[in-house]
Amino acid sequence: MNTQPDAQDFQHKDTAGAHLVRAIPTARPETPVSEVITQLSGQIFDCADTVFVTDAAGRLEGIVRINDLLAHGTRTVAEIMEPEHEAVSRGADQEDIAKLAIRLNMIVVPVVDDAGRLIGAVPPEALFRILRDEHMEDLQRLAGIGAHHAGPDAALDAPIRNRLARRLPWLVFGLLASTLVTLVMVRFEETLASHVTVAFFVPALVYIAGAIGSQAVSVAVRGLATHDVSISALLRDEIVIGLGIGAALGVLSGLGVLIGFGDARLSLAVGLAVLCGGAISSLVGFALPWVFQRLGSDPALGSGPICTVIQDASSLLIYFAAVSLLIL
Amino acid sequence: MNTQPDAQDFQHKDTAGAHLVRAIPTARPETPVSEVITQLSGQIFDCADTVFVTDAAGRLEGIVRINDLLAHGTRTVAEIMEPEHEAVSRGADQEDIAKLAIRLNMIVVPVVDDAGRLIGAVPPEALFRILRDEHMEDLQRLAGIGAHHAGPDAALDAPIRNRLARRLPWLVFGLLASTLVTLVMVRFEETLASHVTVAFFVPALVYIAGAIGSQAVSVAVRGLATHDVSISALLRDEIVIGLGIGAALGVLSGLGVLIGFGDARLSLAVGLAVLCGGAISSLVGFALPWVFQRLGSDPALGSGPICTVIQDASSLLIYFAAVSLLIL
Repeated sequence: MNTQPDAQDFQHKDTAGAHLVRAIPTARPETPVSEVITQLSGQIFDCADTVFVTDAAGRLEGIVRINDLLAHGTRTVAEIMEPEHEAVSRGADQEDIAKLAIRLNMIVVPVVDDAGRLIGAVPPEALFRILRDEHMEDLQRLAGIGAHHAGPDAALDAPIRNRLARRLPWLVFGLLASTLVTLVMVRFEETLASHVTVAFFVPALVYIAGAIGSQAVSVAVRGLATHDVSISALLRDEIVIGLGIGAALGVLSGLGVLIGFGDARLSLAVGLAVLCGGAISSLVGFALPWVFQRLGSDPALGSGPICTVIQDASSLLIYFAAVSLLIL
Repeated sequence: MNTQPDAQDFQHKDTAGAHLVRAIPTARPETPVSEVITQLSGQIFDCADTVFVTDAAGRLEGIVRINDLLAHGTRTVAEIMEPEHEAVSRGADQEDIAKLAIRLNMIVVPVVDDAGRLIGAVPPEALFRILRDEHMEDLQRLAGIGAHHAGPDAALDAPIRNRLARRLPWLVFGLLASTLVTLVMVRFEETLASHVTVAFFVPALVYIAGAIGSQAVSVAVRGLATHDVSISALLRDEIVIGLGIGAALGVLSGLGVLIGFGDARLSLAVGLAVLCGGAISSLVGFALPWVFQRLGSDPALGSGPICTVIQDASSLLIYFAAVSLLIL
């Protein structure tokens, strides 16, 4: 087999093609295992951890780990191979390849063409790098840091100007979006002017909404990345958990305000804002990554900064609504 | 070799011992490669992707990938093995094992006893799971979600009460910590009462400080996990980047306030608060994960919630200081 990766494979950094090695051992199902071992000896492979079983047309029929090959000298390949194989296309997303490997306990993932013919494999070393890169990318995307063209690995070595440029865009977006929370404040100017105590709890409310929301975002990103479970079941759970968190923190914060300020109506307003704000923050933090995924973007991309503004603004609106109802 | 993992290995879920397989192929350096292949045939191994080269006492001397073994039939093991090997002890942390595998491009990591004698290996399947689990744990810890005893995999399947219990502790801590930002607000009650416009920008400032800080936390967690570079060089860069971000956002927000409210002094106060707040948020977000690591904790653990409160409180203090200087 040709060991030179195609030029086209380098065009798509995050696909199977970019990680493809072509010198991999193949065997026919009817061959005795001892014969396969003899045939493999003396050949130069890029990755010989798994032998791929193909038919006469080169179509993938099964896989045999090298362990199993060594163990069963007198049997045929067909007797020991795993026929329940799965393979990826050359254009498969690298994250999906890593997920497949973990799900099926494969350490080398076969790459096939449209006709199911084996064209190469993604070796375990590449799968390690993919898993590490996806990890780093998730951390960056959740924090609103742009992708680096040379991969997440280069992020810390890049010139400072480059690193600055990758962090500014979402922050500038965030600054524009924060006009929304400022407008909520302006809208309640009279309330603030007549009851300055109301302003005391604004930063704490914003803080709590953000903390609850970032947990929900993390749970959603994780759920979307690893599970094939229904989004509706996860969403239902998230609403229950959000209400539970909101209720617990709402009671605590209400009690705190009552003890610290001795104002029952203010205490109720803060408690209600934390309760409803917590539930909404959970909901938004969970739903937005899902929306991003449906739109074809990475769930982690920008969920953080966008979520936070929606959560902050809605928490403040609920707070001022409660204040208007209870105090004014 | 004995394929039964020791009972003691299951006591330490996150160590090499927990992932150890014992039935692995070994060879002596002086043996010809073709003979090794013959010897391996017919044996049952847990993982045969790498052959470990040992001396007469069982001490690890080198490693040979199965690819290389197949390619060089007529040479001896010593001629083709990689003598620059590294190995881990049974108690090695699983995250360190995965890092070592990626750094040295090993797909099977040898485990040795105190005398350097080979006792087993961590196979590639286990390394995949470790990388995936560390990814999920980082996401959870950054969001302030407690670890699940059955591993991050079980987190979405656990009963709702359990998931709630894992999310509440850091939030309750956050609620208590948010007393700090409320106290800052109370301390400036007179300022707020006489200039209610000052309150308008409080949630936006808190939001921007949080956004800048979570980027710095993410960069620090990534840097501590993947790099061996000096913390002081990274910190110096982070201060420069923080000042750059603060300056860019400070000018933008100052202009925004000037256009929206036509108040030059208020505009200057907001701009200064964003500038200094941004620099401090970068610094705190970067330094705190490092402090956590020095204290022996996971850098990602709680950095989020703790950082945010410090960032919020210091941004507000700077804002009110600027307001006091410029407006009152």
